[in-house]
Amino acid sequence: MNEIRVLAPATVSNVVCGFDCLGFALKEPYDEICVRKIPKRGVRIINRDEFDLPTDPEKNVAGVALQAVLDAAGADFGFEIEMTKHIKPGSGIGSSSASSCGAVVAANRLLDGRFSKLDLVNFAMEGEKLASGAKHADNVAPCIFGGFVLVRSVDPLDVVPLNFPPLFVTVIHPQIEIKTADARAILPTEIPLKTAVRQWSHLGAFVAALAQGDYQLLARSMEDFVVEPARKSLIPEFEAVKVASTGAGAIGGGISGSGPSMFMLSENEETAQNIEKFMHHVYSRTSIEFKTYISTVNAKGIVFL
Amino acid sequence: MNEIRVLAPATVSNVVCGFDCLGFALKEPYDEICVRKIPKRGVRIINRDEFDLPTDPEKNVAGVALQAVLDAAGADFGFEIEMTKHIKPGSGIGSSSASSCGAVVAANRLLDGRFSKLDLVNFAMEGEKLASGAKHADNVAPCIFGGFVLVRSVDPLDVVPLNFPPLFVTVIHPQIEIKTADARAILPTEIPLKTAVRQWSHLGAFVAALAQGDYQLLARSMEDFVVEPARKSLIPEFEAVKVASTGAGAIGGGISGSGPSMFMLSENEETAQNIEKFMHHVYSRTSIEFKTYISTVNAKGIVFL
Repeated sequence: MNEIRVLAPATVSNVVCGFDCLGFALKEPYDEICVRKIPKRGVRIINRDEFDLPTDPEKNVAGVALQAVLDAAGADFGFEIEMTKHIKPGSGIGSSSASSCGAVVAANRLLDGRFSKLDLVNFAMEGEKLASGAKHADNVAPCIFGGFVLVRSVDPLDVVPLNFPPLFVTVIHPQIEIKTADARAILPTEIPLKTAVRQWSHLGAFVAALAQGDYQLLARSMEDFVVEPARKSLIPEFEAVKVASTGAGAIGGGISGSGPSMFMLSENEETAQNIEKFMHHVYSRTSIEFKTYISTVNAKGIVFL
Repeated sequence: MNEIRVLAPATVSNVVCGFDCLGFALKEPYDEICVRKIPKRGVRIINRDEFDLPTDPEKNVAGVALQAVLDAAGADFGFEIEMTKHIKPGSGIGSSSASSCGAVVAANRLLDGRFSKLDLVNFAMEGEKLASGAKHADNVAPCIFGGFVLVRSVDPLDVVPLNFPPLFVTVIHPQIEIKTADARAILPTEIPLKTAVRQWSHLGAFVAALAQGDYQLLARSMEDFVVEPARKSLIPEFEAVKVASTGAGAIGGGISGSGPSMFMLSENEETAQNIEKFMHHVYSRTSIEFKTYISTVNAKGIVFL
């Protein structure tokens, strides 16, 4: 076995009241990734898509993640990775995470699964560090574990897979660029304790609602008092999309990652499709290109082909 | 049926990372409360304990709570309440809450249970408002619902009963007075967003740990980055109690309410007793009087006699 192919899905992080700790995996879109063992040490990257990502492994998120695997394994060989990305970089739905997670999960299979999922999250975080300057796990952990995941702590890494009921997701990706630096600069560095209490009361209720499969409580918990108020101005028609989606039956939703994508949860596929229609309706009135996706919350994460 | 007797238990609020939203009911100590229907409108209070609490119903937490019940019921009669309190006022384990909750739960039985548990929490909060100046539900909600309870919101009131595994609690009540005003003034009004994120990541993990019955995760989640660092200086030997309890096998713990009581959770009664021994050891070296209690987390809340 010298070659492993995987599908690595998009992920939603910063889930409403769970800024910087809560994420979940989508089923679509996903990247197709193939990793091969090669005799030469180091990482070789082949891109099979239109995104023109760096092929220098030190500048490529999958490259640094794979190098971390090789280093930890003390390998005297290398990896070649062939990437066919469908998740557009900068979309806010975990494009870099899909690359690095797909790479390390495939590589681990080539190494007879010697590393734990937690190890793999650690390796993949090297990619996140390259992409955003900070190690964060709220995209890579759900990509590797599947489902809804809470990251209690990054250092030491503590990943909590959550129980959750069946959920559909509608995502709209307006094709605009939000610079990570802008999305960060717009956040307050301090918040009132009262606001923090409201936020964590809602996150606690959200986690309980997932565990209990209580869709009504889920709806009541999906409020963000900290990040959404600051960032929504960066996303055209954010309020219109939210209002239209809720009108179409969405449980709730918000900004995916640091945007520009938005996501909405629903109980069934029909509602998810209705939400998509309403999203189309809102964005058709603008001159902004956009894509939409419908997916379940993906309990599996990465799939081997 | 003209008389109802109940035992109303102590409660722990501000559970570690769940400041202002998370509480649970104890089995001991508890107050004995008897409520009777009387022909005369209004509330009459009889105290059968040493605490010398006000008998003017407008100045008594059970009095205002019962008046709220009478008003909502549009009653043309009154209630007499006989209180035998064992929970010392100002202990930080929900003494006022036990009074007002016991009163309204007993009264509701006399009214053929016409009010919901949520209604009763609302009535009992009138007592909390009198006691502390603010309506808060993180003692009254667990007292009335039993078990672990998360308060998502006070207005509108939203109470989330949580699933939880078997847990024992050891409480130590140093007989010192902490003024509510001091306990409040010592809290920051603003906190760094980074600290808030750590706190809510831990609360999310704590709720998940309760739902999944994962004691190890519970232990890792029981950290408070906001309130305990500010308030622990108000409680003599706080760190010593915490270190000794953890050494004795406690899962974790912290300040109960706004103190001075401290609580520690454990998996079984033997460990709870060990923790009690260590608490005794720590406090015996001081000149401060203290009491300790061992209890389960009480799934029932108030008990009818």
